This record gives sequence, C-alpha cells and structure tokens, in this order.
Amino acid sequence: MNRHISEQFDEELQSARQLMMEMGGLLEQQLSNARDALFSQQSEKAMHVIETEKRINGLEKELDEHCIQIIARRQPAASDLRMMISVLRASSDLERIGDEAKRIARTALKIANQALPDDRYAEIESLMTGVEAMVARALDAFARSDVDSALANIAADADIDRRYKTITERLVQDMQRHPDTLDLSMSMIWVARALERIGDHAKNICEYVVYLARGEDVRHTRNPTANN
Amino acid sequence: MNRHISEQFDEELQSARQLMMEMGGLLEQQLSNARDALFSQQSEKAMHVIETEKRINGLEKELDEHCIQIIARRQPAASDLRMMISVLRASSDLERIGDEAKRIARTALKIANQALPDDRYAEIESLMTGVEAMVARALDAFARSDVDSALANIAADADIDRRYKTITERLVQDMQRHPDTLDLSMSMIWVARALERIGDHAKNICEYVVYLARGEDVRHTRNPTANN
Repeated sequence: MNRHISEQFDEELQSARQLMMEMGGLLEQQLSNARDALFSQQSEKAMHVIETEKRINGLEKELDEHCIQIIARRQPAASDLRMMISVLRASSDLERIGDEAKRIARTALKIANQALPDDRYAEIESLMTGVEAMVARALDAFARSDVDSALANIAADADIDRRYKTITERLVQDMQRHPDTLDLSMSMIWVARALERIGDHAKNICEYVVYLARGEDVRHTRNPTANN
Repeated sequence: MNRHISEQFDEELQSARQLMMEMGGLLEQQLSNARDALFSQQSEKAMHVIETEKRINGLEKELDEHCIQIIARRQPAASDLRMMISVLRASSDLERIGDEAKRIARTALKIANQALPDDRYAEIESLMTGVEAMVARALDAFARSDVDSALANIAADADIDRRYKTITERLVQDMQRHPDTLDLSMSMIWVARALERIGDHAKNICEYVVYLARGEDVRHTRNPTANN
C-alpha cells in the first residue's frame, strides 16, 4: 500500500472512532438530562431527550455505513477489521442506551406533576449516576483501548445488577404497602429496569474493548481477567 | 477468482447461514419450552431452557467468529459482505431472544407452585404464541431473503406492542384490585415485557433482510414499504 492510500485509510478509521465518540458524548448528555428530568422534574429536559433520540438513530446509521464502506473498500486485515466490527457492535449498544434514556425521559414526563416523596428514590438516583459513570468509563476504555479498565468495568456491572435487584424488591414491597402510589412505584421499577439495561450495554462495549485488544471474545465469560 | 476458491467461498457463506438457522431453530424450541414451562407449569422444561441457553451463547460466538473469518480471508464485496454483516447482527438479536426465553423460564420456576387463575393469563399466552410466530416468520424471511414477508412482519410488530400495552395496563389494575396476588401480577408483567422485547428482536432481523436485499438501512424508519 503506498503512503497516500495508507494515510487516507488511517483517516477513515480515525473518523469512524471519532463519530462513535461523538455519539457516545451525546448519550452521556442524554443520560444526564434524563436524570435531571426525572429527579428534578425538569420537563423541558425530558422533551429535549426525546427530540434528540432521532439524532442518535441517525448517527448510528451513519456510523454503520461508514464502517461497512471501510470494510468493503479497504479490506482491512486483523486488528483494523476487529476495530470496525467492534465499532459496529458498539454503535448498536449506544443506540439502545439512547432508547433507554428516552424511556426514562417519557417516565419523567408522565410523573412530572406528581409530588415525589423526599429521599424515597435517592437510591435510584444514585444507581443512575453509577450507571452514567459506567457508560463514561466504557467509552473512555474504548477510546484508549484500555483492557484493564474495560475488565474492571465488566466486573462493576455485577454491583449494578445487585443494586437493581434490591431496589426493585423494595419497590414491590412499596406497592404492597402503599397501593395509593402504586403507579409511581411501577414507573420507578421501569426506570430501574432501564438503568440495569444501560449497565449491560456499557458492559458489552467493554467486552468489545477486550476483543479489540486481544482478539478474544469474552462475552458470556464469567469473570474474564487480565490473565485470561 | 478461480472456480475452486469460488466454490469454497460459497460453501463458507452457506455454512454461516446454516449455523444461523440452526441457532434460530434452537430458539424456537426454547420459546415453545418456556411457554409450556410457564402456562402448563412444566418445571423440567424451564430447567431445560435455562440449561440450553449456554449452548445458544456458544453458537453466537461460533457464528460471529465464522463470519469475521470469512470477511477477513475472503474480503467479500457488496452483497456477500452485506450478508455477513446481517448474519452478525442477527446472531446478536437471536442471542438476546435466548436471554428473554431464559427470563421467562426463570419466572416459570418461581411461580411453579402457585395456582394460576383460570384464563386470567390467556391473553399473555396468546401474545406469546403471536411472538413465536413472528420469530418463525423472521427466520423464514431471512432464509429466503423474502423482503415482502420481512416488511409485513415489521408492520406486525406494532400489533404486538399494542397488545403488550393493554396487557400491562390490565396487570397494573390487577395489582391495585388484588394486592394479595401482586407478586404474581408483577411476574406476568416481566413476562409480557420479555415478549415485547422478543418481538423487537424479530423485527430487527426483518430489517436486516431488507438491508440484505436492497442495501437499504430501514432501521428507525416509520412504515418502510415495498416501494421505498
């Protein structure tokens, strides 16, 4: 390959990564806005999240087409191909994180006029910031191809799952004890569920980082480690 | 490309499709077993579904590796590349259908010793057979690259979503009226949710069929039609 073509190819690969990071940055904003919409009852932020979801869907298509074009025209070998496959996979997880953010924003609109009991949902808000941090770390690990950070993040998802389980159990108890706020509890169960799913998608992205660096598929592997 | 290599290449493409169809067939069994486990309270079938999920995860990895190998070694152009990308995407949706089947099987185990009220959950069972039919049609459309059938199936998902919405609204009413069976209603809400998700995955697979045949990405398109 001559230098000119090789430089062009590098630029194309970089632009795919950049587009993915742009999409990731937009999702971080979506989650932060969805959190404000829900816990500070800022309806205009909920509307904004719902509006912005279309842009994320558009970015997913654009990114996917870009990657497929690169594969078709450049026929990348080994590690470059793994990069393109990983970006393709990650774009799908990012888009699904966007779906969940939209679900949370819709719930925020639904309960915008209801009084939220003080501190009753502090744990859910804390789960949400935990999940947001997980998404940020996943994107960062991807950007820096940081396997150790990806593995730590994969392990952290178990903690998210545990907290999700405790929260939903308490919400079901709430429904039994306070049937008058059953709808609100149910809404919060859907929010907790969305957060648990977002954690899974962040975990998936970390699994692609490991695949990218090692060529090893650690999906469905219990406790993948640095020594694997 | 000489004839020998070209024949080998065709065989490899065919074997990827076949592996995907094998995975699809296994998932159809999983869903049927999960339904028997839940509505006929056959716990041994629930156990079988939970056991079999590992095999599906293994098939996903095998299929993905096979596709990536083909892309790396054969550098397929245009339609063959689209086929490999579509199989890669479909394998992820199939694996997630497997996750949902396992969730339903776990719920079946949890409520195995509870008396199910007669006909109370007939609508959910009917939703489940509807979703199973959707998965079967999606796999069939993929196998035959049948765009018309894929488009009809994409349209049918809206009906699944409507039925899901009605069912969950009724279950929430049930919870308010019969707090004594609140746990059971909650379990059924999770089942309905899993079914709605399975419908979405079947729809995704149909979108790949359109992409495969036309090179057109119809994800996030409202009412894609035969004239698009």
